[in-house]
Amino acid sequence: MIIEKNGFIHHVFFWLKNPESTEDANELIEGLKKLSAAPTIKDFHIGIPAATSRDVIDSSYSASWLLLFHNKEDQDIYQTDPIHLKFIKDCAHLWNKVVVYDTIDVK
Amino acid sequence: MIIEKNGFIHHVFFWLKNPESTEDANELIEGLKKLSAAPTIKDFHIGIPAATSRDVIDSSYSASWLLLFHNKEDQDIYQTDPIHLKFIKDCAHLWNKVVVYDTIDVK
Repeated sequence: MIIEKNGFIHHVFFWLKNPESTEDANELIEGLKKLSAAPTIKDFHIGIPAATSRDVIDSSYSASWLLLFHNKEDQDIYQTDPIHLKFIKDCAHLWNKVVVYDTIDVK
Repeated sequence: MIIEKNGFIHHVFFWLKNPESTEDANELIEGLKKLSAAPTIKDFHIGIPAATSRDVIDSSYSASWLLLFHNKEDQDIYQTDPIHLKFIKDCAHLWNKVVVYDTIDVK
């Protein structure tokens, strides 16, 4: 299992203001790469939509950011980590919508 | 990195018809546990919303299903695997909304 007991999954989807701009997409992705240095992150993945298409699939986002943490406390630390705050400061102008799913184990 | 090169992430969020029903939630989770036997799945996680709350966080779903595949081909096989088709047949009556995010590596 990729997620240990008491692990915490944080999955973020970004919709860019200019979804056709390769430059903006690259800027976001470079920002995420820098953000991956935040010390409490256990594991991460930077993604883009796969080429799948069914009614239930949302492939309208520009980039995704999947993080695994050892526990909720590490995620809480990440939220206010200076590296995270700098990412938001530097990159927030690029997107017009963000959706976050925070997930823990079933009880 | 949890995701190998050419890996494929499949993240599904379920909204139950009766979100207050512990019985329905348990039935879905038991169904997902059985579904985890589908042979092309590399790794999986069955989750529920964490106790986080910010504007960008969607915690309205009832259960989540995170799958890792070695590649898109394995995901395609999973879609028509008899174990998957049985899960849909047995459990589709439980939910009224499903959102799927399929994600691959940035190029």
